[in-house]
Amino acid sequence: MIIIGEKLNGSIPKVGAAIAARDEETIVRLAKQQTEAGADYLDVCASVEESKEVETLEWMLKLVQDASDLPICLDSPSPDTIVSAIPFVKKPGLINSVSMEGNKIEKIFPVIANTSWKCVALCSDEKGIPATAEERLHVFDRIIAAADEYNISHDRLFIDPLVEMLCTSEDGIATVVDTIKGIRERNQKVHIIGAISNISFNLPARALINQTFATLAIAAGMDAGVLDPMNRGMRGAIYAAEACMGLDDYCMEYIGAFREGRIGPQKKA
Amino acid sequence: MIIIGEKLNGSIPKVGAAIAARDEETIVRLAKQQTEAGADYLDVCASVEESKEVETLEWMLKLVQDASDLPICLDSPSPDTIVSAIPFVKKPGLINSVSMEGNKIEKIFPVIANTSWKCVALCSDEKGIPATAEERLHVFDRIIAAADEYNISHDRLFIDPLVEMLCTSEDGIATVVDTIKGIRERNQKVHIIGAISNISFNLPARALINQTFATLAIAAGMDAGVLDPMNRGMRGAIYAAEACMGLDDYCMEYIGAFREGRIGPQKKA
Repeated sequence: MIIIGEKLNGSIPKVGAAIAARDEETIVRLAKQQTEAGADYLDVCASVEESKEVETLEWMLKLVQDASDLPICLDSPSPDTIVSAIPFVKKPGLINSVSMEGNKIEKIFPVIANTSWKCVALCSDEKGIPATAEERLHVFDRIIAAADEYNISHDRLFIDPLVEMLCTSEDGIATVVDTIKGIRERNQKVHIIGAISNISFNLPARALINQTFATLAIAAGMDAGVLDPMNRGMRGAIYAAEACMGLDDYCMEYIGAFREGRIGPQKKA
Repeated sequence: MIIIGEKLNGSIPKVGAAIAARDEETIVRLAKQQTEAGADYLDVCASVEESKEVETLEWMLKLVQDASDLPICLDSPSPDTIVSAIPFVKKPGLINSVSMEGNKIEKIFPVIANTSWKCVALCSDEKGIPATAEERLHVFDRIIAAADEYNISHDRLFIDPLVEMLCTSEDGIATVVDTIKGIRERNQKVHIIGAISNISFNLPARALINQTFATLAIAAGMDAGVLDPMNRGMRGAIYAAEACMGLDDYCMEYIGAFREGRIGPQKKA
Protein backbone atom coordinates (compact mmCIF):
# COMPACT_ATOMS: atom_id res chain seq x y z
CA MET A 1 0.00 0.00 0.00
CA ILE A 2 1.40 3.36 -1.06
CA ILE A 3 0.48 5.85 1.65
CA ILE A 4 0.01 9.53 0.87
CA GLY A 5 0.07 11.43 4.16
CA GLU A 6 -2.97 13.73 4.21
CA LYS A 7 -2.20 15.97 7.18
CA LEU A 8 -0.49 18.92 5.42
CA ASN A 9 -3.76 20.30 4.13
CA GLY A 10 -5.09 23.79 4.81
CA SER A 11 -8.65 22.48 4.85
CA ILE A 12 -7.85 20.90 8.23
CA PRO A 13 -8.72 23.78 10.60
CA LYS A 14 -5.52 23.62 12.70
CA VAL A 15 -3.37 23.43 9.58
CA GLY A 16 -5.30 26.25 7.93
CA ALA A 17 -4.64 28.39 11.01
CA ALA A 18 -0.94 27.46 10.93
CA ILE A 19 -0.78 28.46 7.26
CA ALA A 20 -2.53 31.78 7.92
CA ALA A 21 -0.13 32.53 10.77
CA ARG A 22 2.91 31.24 8.84
CA ASP A 23 3.51 28.93 11.80
CA GLU A 24 6.54 27.01 10.57
CA GLU A 25 6.71 24.70 13.56
CA THR A 26 3.32 23.06 12.90
CA ILE A 27 4.13 22.43 9.24
CA VAL A 28 7.56 20.97 10.03
CA ARG A 29 6.14 18.81 12.82
CA LEU A 30 3.43 17.33 10.57
CA ALA A 31 6.02 16.65 7.87
CA LYS A 32 8.32 14.86 10.31
CA GLN A 33 5.58 12.93 12.09
CA GLN A 34 4.10 11.58 8.87
CA THR A 35 7.55 10.65 7.60
CA GLU A 36 8.35 8.75 10.79
CA ALA A 37 4.95 7.06 10.66
CA GLY A 38 5.81 5.48 7.31
CA ALA A 39 4.19 7.70 4.67
CA ASP A 40 5.44 7.24 1.10
CA TYR A 41 4.42 10.72 -0.13
CA LEU A 42 3.50 13.91 1.73
CA ASP A 43 0.44 15.63 0.31
CA VAL A 44 0.84 19.42 0.39
CA CYS A 45 -2.34 21.42 -0.15
CA ALA A 46 -2.68 25.12 0.70
CA SER A 47 -6.47 25.46 0.60
CA VAL A 48 -6.26 29.24 0.32
CA GLU A 49 -7.75 31.51 -2.33
CA GLU A 50 -6.16 30.92 -5.71
CA SER A 51 -4.41 34.30 -5.84
CA LYS A 52 -2.36 33.33 -2.74
CA GLU A 53 -1.99 29.64 -3.51
CA VAL A 54 1.35 29.57 -5.31
CA GLU A 55 3.18 31.69 -2.73
CA THR A 56 1.63 29.65 0.09
CA LEU A 57 2.69 26.40 -1.55
CA GLU A 58 6.20 27.79 -2.07
CA TRP A 59 6.41 28.52 1.67
CA MET A 60 4.98 25.11 2.65
CA LEU A 61 7.10 23.16 0.17
CA LYS A 62 10.34 24.74 1.38
CA LEU A 63 9.57 23.81 4.99
CA VAL A 64 8.34 20.30 4.19
CA GLN A 65 11.26 19.44 1.92
CA ASP A 66 13.77 20.74 4.48
CA ALA A 67 12.14 18.48 7.10
CA SER A 68 11.65 15.32 5.02
CA ASP A 69 13.18 13.56 2.05
CA LEU A 70 9.87 12.02 1.04
CA PRO A 71 8.49 12.86 -2.39
CA ILE A 72 5.72 15.45 -2.48
CA CYS A 73 2.15 14.99 -3.55
CA LEU A 74 1.41 18.46 -4.96
CA ASP A 75 -2.26 19.12 -4.33
CA SER A 76 -4.45 21.88 -5.75
CA PRO A 77 -7.82 22.12 -7.47
CA SER A 78 -6.20 24.54 -9.94
CA PRO A 79 -4.07 23.16 -12.78
CA ASP A 80 -2.46 26.60 -13.20
CA THR A 81 -1.39 26.55 -9.55
CA ILE A 82 0.07 23.08 -9.98
CA VAL A 83 2.05 24.04 -13.07
CA SER A 84 3.34 27.18 -11.29
CA ALA A 85 4.30 25.27 -8.13
CA ILE A 86 6.13 22.38 -9.80
CA PRO A 87 9.43 24.33 -9.85
CA PHE A 88 9.36 24.51 -6.03
CA VAL A 89 9.40 20.74 -5.74
CA LYS A 90 12.94 19.34 -5.54
CA LYS A 91 12.29 15.96 -7.16
CA PRO A 92 9.44 14.60 -9.24
CA GLY A 93 6.55 13.42 -7.07
CA LEU A 94 2.84 12.99 -7.49
CA ILE A 95 0.34 15.56 -8.79
CA ASN A 96 -3.10 15.66 -7.15
CA SER A 97 -5.06 15.79 -9.41
CA VAL A 98 -6.45 15.80 -12.92
CA SER A 99 -9.82 14.54 -14.16
CA MET A 100 -11.79 14.71 -17.40
CA GLU A 101 -13.35 17.91 -16.09
CA GLY A 102 -12.31 21.19 -17.74
CA ASN A 103 -8.81 21.50 -19.14
CA LYS A 104 -6.84 19.94 -16.30
CA ILE A 105 -5.35 17.18 -18.41
CA GLU A 106 -4.53 19.57 -21.27
CA LYS A 107 -2.67 21.84 -18.86
CA ILE A 108 -0.86 19.25 -16.76
CA PHE A 109 -0.10 16.25 -18.97
CA PRO A 110 2.12 18.22 -21.42
CA VAL A 111 4.16 19.61 -18.50
CA ILE A 112 4.84 16.18 -16.97
CA ALA A 113 4.97 14.26 -20.27
CA ASN A 114 8.73 13.91 -20.47
CA THR A 115 9.40 13.79 -16.73
CA SER A 116 9.02 11.09 -14.09
CA TRP A 117 6.20 12.95 -12.32
CA LYS A 118 3.25 10.76 -11.44
CA CYS A 119 -0.35 11.94 -11.44
CA VAL A 120 -3.62 11.25 -9.64
CA ALA A 121 -6.52 11.11 -12.09
CA LEU A 122 -10.14 11.17 -10.88
CA CYS A 123 -12.85 9.22 -12.69
CA SER A 124 -15.02 12.33 -13.01
CA ASP A 125 -15.84 14.53 -15.98
CA GLU A 126 -17.59 17.76 -16.93
CA LYS A 127 -20.85 16.35 -15.55
CA GLY A 128 -19.29 15.65 -12.15
CA ILE A 129 -18.99 12.26 -10.46
CA PRO A 130 -20.74 9.58 -12.52
CA ALA A 131 -23.38 7.65 -10.57
CA THR A 132 -22.45 4.21 -11.86
CA ALA A 133 -19.29 2.13 -11.99
CA GLU A 134 -19.83 1.64 -15.72
CA GLU A 135 -19.74 5.40 -16.37
CA ARG A 136 -16.67 5.84 -14.16
CA LEU A 137 -14.92 3.12 -16.13
CA HIS A 138 -15.80 5.00 -19.30
CA VAL A 139 -14.04 8.06 -17.84
CA PHE A 140 -11.10 5.79 -16.95
CA ASP A 141 -10.85 4.72 -20.58
CA ARG A 142 -10.72 8.39 -21.63
CA ILE A 143 -7.97 9.10 -19.06
CA ILE A 144 -5.90 6.22 -20.43
CA ALA A 145 -6.39 7.50 -23.99
CA ALA A 146 -5.15 10.95 -22.90
CA ALA A 147 -2.15 9.44 -21.10
CA ASP A 148 -1.26 7.47 -24.21
CA GLU A 149 -1.51 10.64 -26.28
CA TYR A 150 1.10 12.32 -24.06
CA ASN A 151 3.15 9.13 -23.79
CA ILE A 152 2.67 8.93 -20.02
CA SER A 153 3.23 5.31 -18.97
CA HIS A 154 0.31 3.75 -17.11
CA ASP A 155 2.36 3.01 -13.98
CA ARG A 156 2.66 6.78 -13.47
CA LEU A 157 -1.11 7.09 -13.08
CA PHE A 158 -2.91 6.86 -9.74
CA ILE A 159 -6.55 6.38 -10.66
CA ASP A 160 -9.11 7.58 -8.13
CA PRO A 161 -12.44 5.70 -8.45
CA LEU A 162 -14.00 8.40 -6.20
CA VAL A 163 -14.93 7.43 -2.67
CA GLU A 164 -18.28 8.90 -1.61
CA MET A 165 -19.99 8.86 1.75
CA LEU A 166 -21.59 5.60 2.78
CA CYS A 167 -24.42 7.07 4.83
CA THR A 168 -26.40 8.24 1.80
CA SER A 169 -25.51 5.32 -0.46
CA GLU A 170 -28.18 2.99 -1.80
CA ASP A 171 -25.80 0.10 -2.40
CA GLY A 172 -23.14 0.34 0.30
CA ILE A 173 -19.70 0.53 -1.29
CA ALA A 174 -20.68 -1.46 -4.37
CA THR A 175 -20.17 1.38 -6.87
CA VAL A 176 -16.64 2.21 -5.78
CA VAL A 177 -15.67 -1.46 -5.35
CA ASP A 178 -17.03 -2.31 -8.80
CA THR A 179 -15.07 0.63 -10.23
CA ILE A 180 -11.87 -0.56 -8.54
CA LYS A 181 -12.37 -4.12 -9.79
CA GLY A 182 -13.21 -2.88 -13.28
CA ILE A 183 -10.07 -0.73 -13.46
CA ARG A 184 -7.95 -3.63 -12.22
CA GLU A 185 -9.48 -6.02 -14.78
CA ARG A 186 -8.81 -3.57 -17.60
CA ASN A 187 -5.33 -2.51 -16.51
CA GLN A 188 -2.77 -4.11 -14.18
CA LYS A 189 -0.25 -1.26 -14.37
CA VAL A 190 -2.07 1.78 -13.02
CA HIS A 191 -2.18 2.41 -9.31
CA ILE A 192 -5.62 2.75 -7.74
CA ILE A 193 -5.89 5.38 -5.04
CA GLY A 194 -8.65 6.66 -2.81
CA ALA A 195 -9.40 9.24 -0.15
CA ILE A 196 -10.34 6.56 2.37
CA SER A 197 -11.95 8.73 5.02
CA ASN A 198 -14.52 10.20 2.58
CA ILE A 199 -16.47 6.98 3.13
CA SER A 200 -17.37 7.81 6.73
CA PHE A 201 -18.58 11.43 6.45
CA ASN A 202 -21.54 12.03 8.79
CA LEU A 203 -21.16 8.67 10.53
CA PRO A 204 -20.12 8.04 14.14
CA ALA A 205 -17.07 5.95 15.05
CA ARG A 206 -15.51 6.89 11.69
CA ALA A 207 -12.35 4.86 12.26
CA LEU A 208 -14.34 1.61 12.20
CA ILE A 209 -15.91 2.42 8.82
CA ASN A 210 -12.63 3.76 7.41
CA GLN A 211 -10.70 0.61 8.36
CA THR A 212 -13.42 -1.69 7.09
CA PHE A 213 -13.61 0.19 3.80
CA ALA A 214 -9.80 0.18 3.43
CA THR A 215 -9.81 -3.59 3.93
CA LEU A 216 -12.47 -4.13 1.27
CA ALA A 217 -10.88 -1.63 -1.15
CA ILE A 218 -7.47 -3.34 -0.83
CA ALA A 219 -9.17 -6.67 -1.47
CA ALA A 220 -10.75 -5.19 -4.62
CA GLY A 221 -7.40 -3.91 -5.91
CA MET A 222 -6.71 -0.48 -4.40
CA ASP A 223 -2.97 -0.10 -3.78
CA ALA A 224 -2.65 3.51 -2.61
CA GLY A 225 -4.49 5.67 -0.11
CA VAL A 226 -4.64 9.28 0.97
CA LEU A 227 -4.84 8.91 4.72
CA ASP A 228 -3.38 9.78 8.11
CA PRO A 229 -0.26 7.63 8.45
CA MET A 230 -0.20 8.29 12.21
CA ASN A 231 -3.52 6.49 12.64
CA ARG A 232 -2.51 3.26 14.34
CA GLY A 233 -5.81 1.47 13.72
CA MET A 234 -5.70 2.20 9.98
CA ARG A 235 -2.07 1.08 9.80
CA GLY A 236 -3.01 -2.20 11.47
CA ALA A 237 -5.98 -2.70 9.13
CA ILE A 238 -3.72 -2.20 6.08
CA TYR A 239 -1.09 -4.68 7.28
CA ALA A 240 -3.81 -7.20 8.19
CA ALA A 241 -5.59 -6.76 4.84
CA GLU A 242 -2.35 -7.26 2.89
CA ALA A 243 -1.62 -10.41 4.93
CA CYS A 244 -5.13 -11.76 4.29
CA MET A 245 -4.85 -11.02 0.56
CA GLY A 246 -1.68 -13.11 0.30
CA LEU A 247 0.42 -9.99 -0.42
CA ASP A 248 2.62 -10.63 2.64
CA ASP A 249 4.40 -13.98 2.51
CA TYR A 250 3.86 -15.91 5.74
CA CYS A 251 2.74 -12.62 7.35
CA MET A 252 6.37 -11.57 7.80
CA GLU A 253 5.64 -7.87 7.21
CA TYR A 254 2.71 -8.04 9.62
CA ILE A 255 4.76 -9.78 12.30
CA GLY A 256 7.63 -7.33 11.75
CA ALA A 257 5.33 -4.31 12.12
CA PHE A 258 3.99 -5.80 15.35
CA ARG A 259 7.49 -6.41 16.73
CA GLU A 260 8.44 -2.82 15.91
CA GLY A 261 5.40 -1.69 17.89
CA ARG A 262 3.79 -0.13 14.80
CA ILE A 263 0.51 -2.12 14.89
CA GLY A 264 -1.64 -3.90 17.46
CA PRO A 265 -2.79 -2.88 20.91
CA GLN A 266 -0.86 0.13 22.17
CA LYS A 267 1.44 -0.85 25.00
CA LYS A 268 0.71 0.99 28.19
CA ALA A 269 3.41 3.47 29.14
CA MET B 1 -24.70 -11.88 10.93
CA ILE B 2 -25.82 -14.80 13.07
CA ILE B 3 -23.51 -14.94 16.09
CA ILE B 4 -22.79 -18.20 17.87
CA GLY B 5 -21.23 -17.37 21.23
CA GLU B 6 -18.08 -19.50 21.59
CA LYS B 7 -17.25 -19.02 25.25
CA LEU B 8 -18.99 -22.05 26.81
CA ASN B 9 -16.32 -24.46 25.63
CA GLY B 10 -14.28 -26.76 27.87
CA SER B 11 -11.27 -26.35 25.59
CA ILE B 12 -10.90 -22.81 26.97
CA PRO B 13 -8.72 -23.45 30.06
CA LYS B 14 -10.81 -21.42 32.54
CA VAL B 15 -14.02 -23.01 31.30
CA GLY B 16 -12.43 -26.48 31.39
CA ALA B 17 -11.48 -25.85 35.02
CA ALA B 18 -15.00 -24.64 35.81
CA ILE B 19 -16.45 -27.79 34.23
CA ALA B 20 -14.05 -30.05 36.17
CA ALA B 21 -14.96 -28.28 39.43
CA ARG B 22 -18.69 -28.17 38.56
CA ASP B 23 -18.44 -24.41 39.11
CA GLU B 24 -21.97 -23.36 38.26
CA GLU B 25 -21.34 -19.64 38.67
CA THR B 26 -18.80 -19.45 35.82
CA ILE B 27 -21.08 -21.31 33.40
CA VAL B 28 -24.11 -19.18 34.29
CA ARG B 29 -22.09 -15.97 34.03
CA LEU B 30 -20.77 -16.83 30.56
CA ALA B 31 -24.28 -17.72 29.41
CA LYS B 32 -25.70 -14.43 30.68
CA GLN B 33 -22.83 -12.27 29.42
CA GLN B 34 -22.98 -13.67 25.90
CA THR B 35 -26.77 -13.29 25.86
CA GLU B 36 -26.54 -9.66 26.91
CA ALA B 37 -23.79 -9.06 24.34
CA GLY B 38 -26.14 -10.04 21.52
CA ALA B 39 -25.35 -13.67 20.70
CA ASP B 40 -27.99 -15.52 18.64
CA TYR B 41 -26.97 -19.01 19.81
CA LEU B 42 -24.89 -20.25 22.73
CA ASP B 43 -22.39 -22.95 21.77
CA VAL B 44 -22.10 -25.58 24.50
CA CYS B 45 -19.12 -27.90 24.25
CA ALA B 46 -17.88 -30.06 27.11
CA SER B 47 -14.43 -30.99 25.76
CA VAL B 48 -14.09 -33.88 28.20
CA GLU B 49 -13.43 -37.55 27.46
CA GLU B 50 -16.30 -39.13 25.58
CA SER B 51 -17.40 -41.39 28.46
CA LYS B 52 -18.17 -38.28 30.57
CA GLU B 53 -19.41 -36.06 27.77
CA VAL B 54 -23.15 -36.67 27.91
CA GLU B 55 -23.43 -36.18 31.68
CA THR B 56 -21.25 -33.07 31.46
CA LEU B 57 -23.40 -31.63 28.67
CA GLU B 58 -26.54 -32.43 30.69
CA TRP B 59 -25.13 -30.41 33.60
CA MET B 60 -24.02 -27.52 31.37
CA LEU B 61 -27.24 -27.43 29.36
CA LYS B 62 -29.41 -27.24 32.48
CA LEU B 63 -27.45 -24.27 33.81
CA VAL B 64 -27.23 -22.47 30.47
CA GLN B 65 -30.92 -22.89 29.65
CA ASP B 66 -31.96 -21.72 33.11
CA ALA B 67 -29.81 -18.60 32.60
CA SER B 68 -30.70 -17.77 28.98
CA ASP B 69 -33.56 -18.23 26.55
CA LEU B 70 -31.21 -18.31 23.56
CA PRO B 71 -31.19 -21.44 21.42
CA ILE B 72 -28.30 -23.83 22.00
CA CYS B 73 -25.56 -24.79 19.59
CA LEU B 74 -24.89 -28.36 20.73
CA ASP B 75 -21.23 -29.01 20.10
CA SER B 76 -19.34 -32.31 20.19
CA PRO B 77 -16.94 -34.19 17.92
CA SER B 78 -18.98 -37.33 18.64
CA PRO B 79 -22.27 -37.88 16.79
CA ASP B 80 -23.30 -40.39 19.47
CA THR B 81 -22.85 -37.74 22.14
CA ILE B 82 -24.91 -35.27 20.14
CA VAL B 83 -27.75 -37.73 19.63
CA SER B 84 -27.69 -38.60 23.36
CA ALA B 85 -27.63 -34.95 24.45
CA ILE B 86 -30.42 -33.67 22.20
CA PRO B 87 -33.11 -34.59 24.78
CA PHE B 88 -31.47 -32.19 27.28
CA VAL B 89 -32.03 -29.24 24.95
CA LYS B 90 -35.38 -27.53 25.55
CA LYS B 91 -36.01 -26.27 22.03
CA PRO B 92 -34.47 -27.13 18.65
CA GLY B 93 -31.18 -25.29 18.09
CA LEU B 94 -28.07 -25.87 16.05
CA ILE B 95 -25.92 -29.00 15.96
CA ASN B 96 -22.15 -28.53 15.69
CA SER B 97 -21.24 -30.45 13.56
CA VAL B 98 -21.38 -33.02 10.80
CA SER B 99 -19.04 -33.47 7.84
CA MET B 100 -18.53 -36.08 5.13
CA GLU B 101 -16.06 -37.79 7.48
CA GLY B 102 -17.13 -41.11 9.05
CA ASN B 103 -20.79 -41.72 9.76
CA LYS B 104 -21.70 -38.36 11.31
CA ILE B 105 -24.33 -37.53 8.72
CA GLU B 106 -25.82 -41.03 8.85
CA LYS B 107 -26.15 -40.76 12.64
CA ILE B 108 -27.39 -37.20 12.94
CA PHE B 109 -29.45 -36.36 9.85
CA PRO B 110 -32.09 -39.09 10.52
CA VAL B 111 -32.53 -37.80 14.09
CA ILE B 112 -33.11 -34.19 13.03
CA ALA B 113 -34.85 -34.98 9.74
CA ASN B 114 -38.39 -34.26 10.87
CA THR B 115 -37.54 -31.57 13.41
CA SER B 116 -36.58 -27.90 13.11
CA TRP B 117 -33.03 -28.51 14.34
CA LYS B 118 -30.37 -26.80 12.24
CA CYS B 119 -26.93 -28.26 11.61
CA VAL B 120 -23.38 -27.06 10.96
CA ALA B 121 -21.76 -29.08 8.16
CA LEU B 122 -18.02 -28.91 7.55
CA CYS B 123 -16.60 -29.12 4.01
CA SER B 124 -14.25 -31.94 5.02
CA ASP B 125 -14.35 -35.67 4.30
CA GLU B 126 -12.62 -38.94 5.18
CA LYS B 127 -9.33 -37.52 3.82
CA GLY B 128 -9.54 -34.49 6.11
CA ILE B 129 -9.67 -30.85 5.00
CA PRO B 130 -9.37 -30.57 1.21
CA ALA B 131 -6.53 -28.30 0.08
CA THR B 132 -8.45 -26.49 -2.65
CA ALA B 133 -11.71 -24.58 -2.86
CA GLU B 134 -12.78 -26.81 -5.76
CA GLU B 135 -12.48 -29.93 -3.61
CA ARG B 136 -14.29 -28.28 -0.69
CA LEU B 137 -17.12 -27.36 -3.05
CA HIS B 138 -17.28 -30.98 -4.14
CA VAL B 139 -17.76 -31.93 -0.47
CA PHE B 140 -20.43 -29.22 -0.24
CA ASP B 141 -22.29 -30.83 -3.14
CA ARG B 142 -22.21 -34.17 -1.30
CA ILE B 143 -23.56 -32.52 1.89
CA ILE B 144 -26.45 -31.01 -0.08
CA ALA B 145 -27.20 -34.39 -1.65
CA ALA B 146 -27.31 -35.97 1.82
CA ALA B 147 -29.55 -33.19 3.15
CA ASP B 148 -31.92 -33.70 0.23
CA GLU B 149 -31.98 -37.42 0.96
CA TYR B 150 -33.18 -36.73 4.51
CA ASN B 151 -35.48 -33.92 3.36
CA ILE B 152 -33.57 -31.32 5.40
CA SER B 153 -34.25 -27.90 3.89
CA HIS B 154 -31.14 -25.99 2.84
CA ASP B 155 -31.87 -23.03 5.11
CA ARG B 156 -31.31 -25.38 8.07
CA LEU B 157 -27.70 -25.95 7.04
CA PHE B 158 -24.80 -23.84 8.27
CA ILE B 159 -21.96 -24.70 5.91
CA ASP B 160 -18.44 -24.27 7.27
CA PRO B 161 -15.87 -23.68 4.48
CA LEU B 162 -13.11 -24.38 7.07
CA VAL B 163 -11.04 -21.47 8.27
CA GLU B 164 -7.36 -22.37 8.58
CA MET B 165 -4.49 -20.39 10.00
CA LEU B 166 -3.17 -17.59 7.81
CA CYS B 167 0.44 -17.75 8.96
CA THR B 168 1.22 -20.95 7.06
CA SER B 169 -0.96 -20.19 4.04
CA GLU B 170 0.52 -19.85 0.56
CA ASP B 171 -2.34 -17.74 -0.79
CA GLY B 172 -3.63 -15.72 2.13
CA ILE B 173 -7.33 -16.33 2.64
CA ALA B 174 -8.01 -17.11 -1.03
CA THR B 175 -8.98 -20.76 -0.50
CA VAL B 176 -11.60 -20.05 2.15
CA VAL B 177 -12.91 -16.95 0.35
CA ASP B 178 -13.20 -18.87 -2.93
CA THR B 179 -15.03 -21.63 -1.06
CA ILE B 180 -17.47 -19.12 0.47
CA LYS B 181 -18.10 -17.46 -2.90
CA GLY B 182 -18.51 -20.83 -4.58
CA ILE B 183 -21.06 -21.99 -2.00
CA ARG B 184 -22.97 -18.71 -2.34
CA GLU B 185 -23.01 -18.95 -6.14
CA ARG B 186 -24.34 -22.52 -5.99
CA ASN B 187 -26.85 -21.97 -3.21
CA GLN B 188 -28.51 -18.85 -1.80
CA LYS B 189 -30.38 -20.63 0.98
CA VAL B 190 -27.69 -22.23 3.13
CA HIS B 191 -26.02 -20.21 5.84
CA ILE B 192 -22.24 -19.96 5.69
CA ILE B 193 -20.48 -20.11 9.03
CA GLY B 194 -16.88 -20.00 10.19
CA ALA B 195 -14.73 -20.20 13.29
CA ILE B 196 -13.33 -16.73 12.68
CA SER B 197 -10.47 -16.79 15.16
CA ASN B 198 -8.88 -19.91 13.59
CA ILE B 199 -7.43 -17.52 10.99
CA SER B 200 -5.03 -15.86 13.45
CA PHE B 201 -3.45 -18.87 15.21
CA ASN B 202 0.22 -18.23 15.90
CA LEU B 203 0.02 -14.55 14.91
CA PRO B 204 0.40 -11.52 17.17
CA ALA B 205 -2.33 -8.88 17.57
CA ARG B 206 -4.90 -11.56 16.69
CA ALA B 207 -7.87 -9.20 16.96
CA LEU B 208 -6.62 -7.23 13.94
CA ILE B 209 -6.43 -10.32 11.74
CA ASN B 210 -9.72 -11.69 13.07
CA GLN B 211 -11.60 -8.47 12.33
CA THR B 212 -10.04 -8.09 8.89
CA PHE B 213 -10.86 -11.68 8.01
CA ALA B 214 -14.44 -11.30 9.30
CA THR B 215 -14.85 -8.24 7.07
CA LEU B 216 -13.60 -10.07 3.98
CA ALA B 217 -15.58 -13.23 4.78
CA ILE B 218 -18.81 -11.23 5.20
CA ALA B 219 -18.10 -9.52 1.88
CA ALA B 220 -17.67 -12.96 0.28
CA GLY B 221 -21.00 -14.20 1.65
CA MET B 222 -20.46 -15.57 5.17
CA ASP B 223 -23.51 -14.81 7.32
CA ALA B 224 -22.75 -16.60 10.60
CA GLY B 225 -19.75 -16.80 12.89
CA VAL B 226 -18.59 -18.73 15.92
CA LEU B 227 -16.99 -15.97 17.96
CA ASP B 228 -16.82 -14.11 21.24
CA PRO B 229 -19.86 -11.80 21.26
CA MET B 230 -18.31 -9.76 24.09
CA ASN B 231 -15.43 -8.71 21.81
CA ARG B 232 -16.19 -5.06 21.12
CA GLY B 233 -13.77 -4.71 18.22
CA MET B 234 -15.23 -7.71 16.40
CA ARG B 235 -18.74 -6.43 16.97
CA GLY B 236 -17.78 -3.09 15.46
CA ALA B 237 -16.11 -4.79 12.47
CA ILE B 238 -19.27 -6.82 11.78
CA TYR B 239 -21.56 -3.78 11.92
CA ALA B 240 -19.17 -1.79 9.73
CA ALA B 241 -18.83 -4.64 7.21
CA GLU B 242 -22.60 -5.06 6.94
CA ALA B 243 -22.97 -1.29 6.40
CA CYS B 244 -20.27 -1.32 3.70
CA MET B 245 -21.88 -4.30 1.96
CA GLY B 246 -25.19 -2.46 1.68
CA LEU B 247 -26.87 -4.84 4.14
CA ASP B 248 -27.73 -1.98 6.51
CA ASP B 249 -29.96 0.68 4.88
CA TYR B 250 -28.50 4.15 5.41
CA CYS B 251 -26.31 2.66 8.17
CA MET B 252 -29.23 2.78 10.59
CA GLU B 253 -28.20 -0.42 12.41
CA TYR B 254 -24.61 0.83 12.65
CA ILE B 255 -25.69 4.23 13.98
CA GLY B 256 -28.10 2.54 16.42
CA ALA B 257 -25.38 0.24 17.76
CA PHE B 258 -23.13 3.26 18.26
CA ARG B 259 -25.85 5.18 20.10
CA GLU B 260 -26.45 2.20 22.37
CA GLY B 261 -22.73 2.19 23.17
CA ARG B 262 -22.24 -1.26 21.64
CA ILE B 263 -19.58 -0.29 19.05
CA GLY B 264 -16.92 2.37 18.62
CA PRO B 265 -14.34 3.74 21.01
CA GLN B 266 -15.08 2.72 24.57
CA LYS B 267 -16.20 5.69 26.63
CA LYS B 268 -13.94 6.35 29.58
CA ALA B 269 -15.63 5.57 32.88
